[in-house]
Amino acid sequence: MRMYDLIAKKRDGYSLTKEEINFVIAGFTSGEIPDYQMSAFLMAVYLRGMTDEETAQMTLAMAHSGDMVDLSGIDGIKVDKHSTGGVGDKTTLVIAPIVASCGVKVAKMSGRGLGHTGGTVDKMESVPGCRTSLPREEFFEQVNRVGISVIGQSGNLAPADKKMYALRDVTATVGCVPLIASSIMSKKLAAGSDCILLDVKTGNGAFMKTLDGSIELAKAMTAIGEHNGRRVAALITDMDTPLGYAVGNSLEVSESMEVLKGRGPEDLKEVCLQLAANMLYLAQKGDLQQCRSMAEEAIRSGKAFEVCKQMFAAQGGDTSVLDDCSKFHKAAYSKQVFAPQDGYVLSTDTEKIGIASVLLGAGRQTKDDIIDFAAGLILHKKVGDHVKAGEPLATLYAEDETRFAQAEKMFLSAYCFSDVPVNKPALVLARVTKEGVERFE
Amino acid sequence: MRMYDLIAKKRDGYSLTKEEINFVIAGFTSGEIPDYQMSAFLMAVYLRGMTDEETAQMTLAMAHSGDMVDLSGIDGIKVDKHSTGGVGDKTTLVIAPIVASCGVKVAKMSGRGLGHTGGTVDKMESVPGCRTSLPREEFFEQVNRVGISVIGQSGNLAPADKKMYALRDVTATVGCVPLIASSIMSKKLAAGSDCILLDVKTGNGAFMKTLDGSIELAKAMTAIGEHNGRRVAALITDMDTPLGYAVGNSLEVSESMEVLKGRGPEDLKEVCLQLAANMLYLAQKGDLQQCRSMAEEAIRSGKAFEVCKQMFAAQGGDTSVLDDCSKFHKAAYSKQVFAPQDGYVLSTDTEKIGIASVLLGAGRQTKDDIIDFAAGLILHKKVGDHVKAGEPLATLYAEDETRFAQAEKMFLSAYCFSDVPVNKPALVLARVTKEGVERFE
Repeated sequence: MRMYDLIAKKRDGYSLTKEEINFVIAGFTSGEIPDYQMSAFLMAVYLRGMTDEETAQMTLAMAHSGDMVDLSGIDGIKVDKHSTGGVGDKTTLVIAPIVASCGVKVAKMSGRGLGHTGGTVDKMESVPGCRTSLPREEFFEQVNRVGISVIGQSGNLAPADKKMYALRDVTATVGCVPLIASSIMSKKLAAGSDCILLDVKTGNGAFMKTLDGSIELAKAMTAIGEHNGRRVAALITDMDTPLGYAVGNSLEVSESMEVLKGRGPEDLKEVCLQLAANMLYLAQKGDLQQCRSMAEEAIRSGKAFEVCKQMFAAQGGDTSVLDDCSKFHKAAYSKQVFAPQDGYVLSTDTEKIGIASVLLGAGRQTKDDIIDFAAGLILHKKVGDHVKAGEPLATLYAEDETRFAQAEKMFLSAYCFSDVPVNKPALVLARVTKEGVERFE
Repeated sequence: MRMYDLIAKKRDGYSLTKEEINFVIAGFTSGEIPDYQMSAFLMAVYLRGMTDEETAQMTLAMAHSGDMVDLSGIDGIKVDKHSTGGVGDKTTLVIAPIVASCGVKVAKMSGRGLGHTGGTVDKMESVPGCRTSLPREEFFEQVNRVGISVIGQSGNLAPADKKMYALRDVTATVGCVPLIASSIMSKKLAAGSDCILLDVKTGNGAFMKTLDGSIELAKAMTAIGEHNGRRVAALITDMDTPLGYAVGNSLEVSESMEVLKGRGPEDLKEVCLQLAANMLYLAQKGDLQQCRSMAEEAIRSGKAFEVCKQMFAAQGGDTSVLDDCSKFHKAAYSKQVFAPQDGYVLSTDTEKIGIASVLLGAGRQTKDDIIDFAAGLILHKKVGDHVKAGEPLATLYAEDETRFAQAEKMFLSAYCFSDVPVNKPALVLARVTKEGVERFE
């Protein structure tokens, strides 16, 4: 078998066999297939597509390129969740404890911030002392004892995907449904959970900009997971505006704790309840309505918050900041951003808000940047809200005052206003399962 | 400007501007644009195409990536010729002397054998003592004095093309008309002649397998050349069977000399006369019929053969082998290949015949192989000929007897037979000029 012939086959629109896909992934991972051949192949895939069978096989081959985590040492059903990434997307910190407090195990590996989007691991590390890297045995022991552990991804999880993603990122071959789906699902399959809930963000702050594209991606990922014996569902959720009001690491942890304490922003709470209900549903705890009630009860009873604190405590975190979020280290400087005019907020360019937060120090501009956990911003006005000229749109936080100028400019450029009332965007736009697609619009 | 954005632009089917194409070619040539980005770009070009303007600009950028040969030091009109490569394709050795003997200067850079196809430079080197690398001044002086010089390509002619071709060759992006056209024409523009005749081979021994594809390529190349102020025409000639009977370096030189002496195979002679007539026509020596008569007269009078000998002599070659080709060094071994059955030769897989010749030592299997100039084969039966079982189809020549087994097997697998008579293939299928396409079928 020669890579040249497989490039030509895909270039000409043919489907590759299982053996051929395995050859591509194994050869690329080992370095026998050079980057310049792989990038030509990836562009051919981008423009010619892949069948469901090819996508499923590529996913499996990438999953098997590294460790396949065996969670059988943990009793009961294990449920995982993946978000395609957004701004202010702190749902894991709310829903994983809810689900665990309902008796479904969460042995989860999460990612760090990427570009304008945040990452759960960075957020957890804003809790003083919290470790996000645990030896395998300790991880298992914690999940068995507390019901939950969330850690960073192990170094050898789907290395083929890691290498391929880096190449796609510089060759304009990222935005292709079969490649996105196989990238995400290879890691999820390798991570070993029985059930996987996918949160596919859609809108101007998300990777997928349109509902149809998001549904297509959700369907592809669901098919891959089900094909490999996992129970999978996907919610398509809005990312035309940040989720909640807080963007930045400890700011988002604080907002998450508010929800777990029965308060917090309505939009964040509602999305979390629907995500949690679907995770419980996948774990066969009842019908969707029953699962939603369980999730609500987990918050009301305080059980979910308790489990959350147990998780942080087990991972070395100082839980006093969770009980009283005012104890979090505060940014040295803050600055309000004022509305330049009267009106209703028509739209927010959510990616720009994410970038403003990165500019404040809440994310990394280069791989080696160190995050300021206290940096970020709190929104005061979101899409549909009315605002008067001179009222604050947001408060920015930074450890370094010089960061404000650029961040404020970026933030303000994200807002558009309207003279007439604007509807609040829908929060959950669709649900995708192996049975089909439900649209909620 | 970022290469990433240009890959994405071409991927999405947009046309690149002149500045963007110059950026791609300059960056790739200098090494600032890595191979893995260029190969993704080339695959996008393969699948999305390029406009005539893009192709013309890419050609010009590649031509200007190295030396632009200035032939103004040579008096009169200079005419060049390019063949897309075939088996037994020895026309340059016949037509360049014809044209030069008619008073049109030929300052030509030729290539070496590639894959199953031969190259003029290798053939010339089979004449003992012949140099194919001359200092620029000596090259010019010879063309001014003798009217003709044929040498190998200078090291710095269109280096961008050289680098890009090497990458296309391993990423399945060779067979794409705009890329082929710009590759060929970049070298021709850099080589500096006023007129360029293209011999586009078509059929199973050629790079382009179909007449329509060959015409498309010829039109693209003609447009590029005319766009850049050169007079260009193309003949589409048959390569469903080798040209002439000889395949191999000194064997082909001998057959060419036969034509220049007024003998030689009819097919080779006819194709050479048409090519030569078109070169003279481009050089404005008369209408096509007048130019053909001039070419015929150049052979009949012996003037073309005389000029050929002068060229070889000027380049250090021993012309006694041209006067008496039996003086060429002969291969140590020969072997006849016999027809396995009665019948008419229905078809010959010309690429396989070319490979058989390479296996005998007439070409290079790897870049560093040394050619046996005496190796090769002489056909006795071609498409349309009748043959009886046991009659010889060809004679193979090699310096090493062990080469015969594999070469004979390859050679025999190239022949198909028919019980009913088969027409001889047409020799010249179409002519393409800026005025349009004439088909001769």
